[in-house]
Amino acid sequence: MAPHCAASSAAGQTGAAEETQPGAADELRALLIGASDVLSEYVAQSQQPQARVLGGRSVQQMRADLRLDEFPDKGAGADGIWDDVRAVCGAAANTWSSRFLYKLYAAPAPAGVVGEALLGVLNNNSHVFRASPAGTLIESSVAAKLAELAGFPAQTEGLTFPGGSYANMHALVTARNCALPDARRRGLHVPGGRAPVVLTSRHAHYSVDKAAMAAGLGLEGVAHVPTDGHGRMDARALRRMLQRAVDGGLAPVMVNATMGTTVLGACDPLDAIAAVCEDFGVWLHVDASWGGPLALFGGDPPAAPAFAVPRGRIDSMTINPHKLLGVPLQCSFLLVRRGLGTMRQALGLNAGYLFHDDADASELDLGDATLGCGRRPDAIKLWLMWRYYGTAYFVRRVAHARRMALRLAELVRTRTSPAGRWRLVQEPPSTCVCFWFVPRQLAGGSSDEDERWGLATRRICERVNASGTALVDYASVDLPRPGPSGAPEMRRVPDFFRIPLNSPDVAEDALVAVLDAIELAASGLTF
Amino acid sequence: MAPHCAASSAAGQTGAAEETQPGAADELRALLIGASDVLSEYVAQSQQPQARVLGGRSVQQMRADLRLDEFPDKGAGADGIWDDVRAVCGAAANTWSSRFLYKLYAAPAPAGVVGEALLGVLNNNSHVFRASPAGTLIESSVAAKLAELAGFPAQTEGLTFPGGSYANMHALVTARNCALPDARRRGLHVPGGRAPVVLTSRHAHYSVDKAAMAAGLGLEGVAHVPTDGHGRMDARALRRMLQRAVDGGLAPVMVNATMGTTVLGACDPLDAIAAVCEDFGVWLHVDASWGGPLALFGGDPPAAPAFAVPRGRIDSMTINPHKLLGVPLQCSFLLVRRGLGTMRQALGLNAGYLFHDDADASELDLGDATLGCGRRPDAIKLWLMWRYYGTAYFVRRVAHARRMALRLAELVRTRTSPAGRWRLVQEPPSTCVCFWFVPRQLAGGSSDEDERWGLATRRICERVNASGTALVDYASVDLPRPGPSGAPEMRRVPDFFRIPLNSPDVAEDALVAVLDAIELAASGLTF
Repeated sequence: MAPHCAASSAAGQTGAAEETQPGAADELRALLIGASDVLSEYVAQSQQPQARVLGGRSVQQMRADLRLDEFPDKGAGADGIWDDVRAVCGAAANTWSSRFLYKLYAAPAPAGVVGEALLGVLNNNSHVFRASPAGTLIESSVAAKLAELAGFPAQTEGLTFPGGSYANMHALVTARNCALPDARRRGLHVPGGRAPVVLTSRHAHYSVDKAAMAAGLGLEGVAHVPTDGHGRMDARALRRMLQRAVDGGLAPVMVNATMGTTVLGACDPLDAIAAVCEDFGVWLHVDASWGGPLALFGGDPPAAPAFAVPRGRIDSMTINPHKLLGVPLQCSFLLVRRGLGTMRQALGLNAGYLFHDDADASELDLGDATLGCGRRPDAIKLWLMWRYYGTAYFVRRVAHARRMALRLAELVRTRTSPAGRWRLVQEPPSTCVCFWFVPRQLAGGSSDEDERWGLATRRICERVNASGTALVDYASVDLPRPGPSGAPEMRRVPDFFRIPLNSPDVAEDALVAVLDAIELAASGLTF
Repeated sequence: MAPHCAASSAAGQTGAAEETQPGAADELRALLIGASDVLSEYVAQSQQPQARVLGGRSVQQMRADLRLDEFPDKGAGADGIWDDVRAVCGAAANTWSSRFLYKLYAAPAPAGVVGEALLGVLNNNSHVFRASPAGTLIESSVAAKLAELAGFPAQTEGLTFPGGSYANMHALVTARNCALPDARRRGLHVPGGRAPVVLTSRHAHYSVDKAAMAAGLGLEGVAHVPTDGHGRMDARALRRMLQRAVDGGLAPVMVNATMGTTVLGACDPLDAIAAVCEDFGVWLHVDASWGGPLALFGGDPPAAPAFAVPRGRIDSMTINPHKLLGVPLQCSFLLVRRGLGTMRQALGLNAGYLFHDDADASELDLGDATLGCGRRPDAIKLWLMWRYYGTAYFVRRVAHARRMALRLAELVRTRTSPAGRWRLVQEPPSTCVCFWFVPRQLAGGSSDEDERWGLATRRICERVNASGTALVDYASVDLPRPGPSGAPEMRRVPDFFRIPLNSPDVAEDALVAVLDAIELAASGLTF
């Protein structure tokens, strides 16, 4: 293979461009053909039943394998790139294994990878329309389609962000600036002004707290609403807390509800919450980063009936197609009922050098509706997958994840073991399954309050992951438990295994393998 | 070609995984081979001398070409994807043309596109180490290397963000929380507390204003320091403004200096600014999104001697390899002198479900040093290019961009035309060239204060871009001009052409073609 052409073209004598230009196309073709070999081989190996999910080498060894101290003056070109690519693959987490059950995303859909290559080649930037006409139109069109599927009114618009946290942050800052019009110009340090507060469930994603902290509300500017025993926000408590905030002179700027909580996968009671928000005139944001696809592509009969958007009653919603829909990271949408004009008014600066009022297309410029500037046209990946696989693929994908979650719960519920006791935290409300494996030594007590259950979870998890057999995770949440007086108090339960189901490649054999691995890992431990 | 396998695998009967798993690898291979053809053909066509830089079709026509109302239930699979990919390419901005001189980025380097495909296939998420071991180690290693090249002390660490605006925002919120320790917990609405203020040059990127607004400082919480006649921050004015802020009971939390301003490409006097910041104990952030590579890869003798980082005297720095280094969008680093511990302390929440204290690798978890959660391992793209092309490529690339900027300035300075007058705004301080073409009817006056110069720029620019011959942009800035009393005042100059030089494929012929296109477009206009 010819040495890297672009590097020589960069030698860039004046006038040399004409000769070297064809080089880039040839170089790109050769590189993508090489990538088709190396990357498909990696995928095939990674999907083997015996493939490790995590390499098991030390950090030191990985550094050496990657030769991280080598930043060569002269590049190795085509002779070296595949060794480097293979080294990266070798030190990556294997999302292609059906025993990768670690996080809310999984192996990407192959057509989504074509989308990444396409984005890379185009290098278009969807901050202004002209810098990315196709990307802008596709983004707006996909956002409108998602809004339609979620039952939003017609004027709803949306756009992508580099992840659900940033989408949530934009919802919060927009809501803050709408509720406190002085905040945009004068900031929050206004003598005599009302202190802003955000209300969210204790089980909501931490990005709401981070966004509030970043936005000058402080961590104390977040009021955490208790949940019921299934991890769903208590709408009556929300009403009481909102009333208390208003009575106390605070300014509630947003309520964040969650469709698919991070740990349990629960869906807050959105109708009841919407009614409260309407009574108080507060912006209702729904973080449906994880669970949104269950509402939009839930099928008929719906895979998870509780996952439904109250039509026209929510102000904004985050949904991450890079999670349950298999789009490669990153692809995250924020839908805004009042349209992007509201975001532009709240966040825009109309920077003269970039956004030109006189251009006919300025209404199509998406960037000024954000706190950022340059923007990847990530929507193209979802669009391409949609046209390649069809809506039915997303529906099947969601249904499969839900079916596997129910199956895993059944396996846990019915499994018996001489080594200990399996116990579900609760029936899975969507596609996260949470359970303990309680080693025999600890299984005598009937209370799930035994902190040693959490210790067991952590130690078993560590061993499973170190073995490379599977990559799984644990978590904990606060749940209402009878307090000393008998009245329920929110108390932290011991750490449990939390298994998100997602990939269409995960079948029962993988679930059994993971439970076997947990039992095996536990067998060598003493408490 | 076989119909899309993953869509059928998603039909997902329990136990079906073993048969369908090999399908994904085959599907990926076929898709990447297809992409190698279609995308390299697109690049070859896009580089042709007659290729349009912008398609020239109406929004309506583009919507129709993309068939944006079709979200099919059943996907077209391999039979349809290349039509869709070609449709996207056809409605994209052509960054591969050497007459794409529109924004601060250009055509991506082919090896960077391999990086995108690799990221897509791995689908690793660099929020926690275990979810992306290779990505995390590479990110830390590349950040350390950039810090070393920039002359930062050894404890400096860094990480990537989805763009320079987000990197700047993280610097600001970190600096704010360091300067006002109550802000993190209690927010900015603290009775009796000092109001925070950020100081930045009038020519700084608008992301500083957006970040301040988002962070609760308000747009009025940004003090804009005047510049000298070359668009560089006036360090003496900075000192006076800082003193006034302190005397007025404000809390200056950060000074933002710019290496490579967005419009003129100027570099603020960093040594003088650092001295001021040291005297006041204020966090000094340098936004080197655009100009950083001139300091890090400026060569010997340096391509732009003013672009140098004062060793050990700045607290944080943003640098965007997706601009001058040709990495595909997005790849943006924030370097932090005190290390990521400072960011974790300022921004982290240590969310239990995600960041596990007991894991041996928790110090390698990058996500909690940010306001986000999921993170693309964008650093892999730069690393792969570094190993493929070598440091020398970046040095040549930067030198070429600088050489072309000087050449374009010379062409403008020396060009004569019966249709009007060419006039540089100033000699290019780096790789942006700013100039007017003043049509003959307007060229009589000697003043550059004639607002009709700006009108001419905008109308000519519109025609050039509509023609498809080139994609160029215009901008304006405030510069000190003699006021009524004779003392200098910051006043807006009329809009001028602003041409950033970047791609190694841009040679003199492209520059001449753009100037010809401007003259041609002007010839049909009357004022």
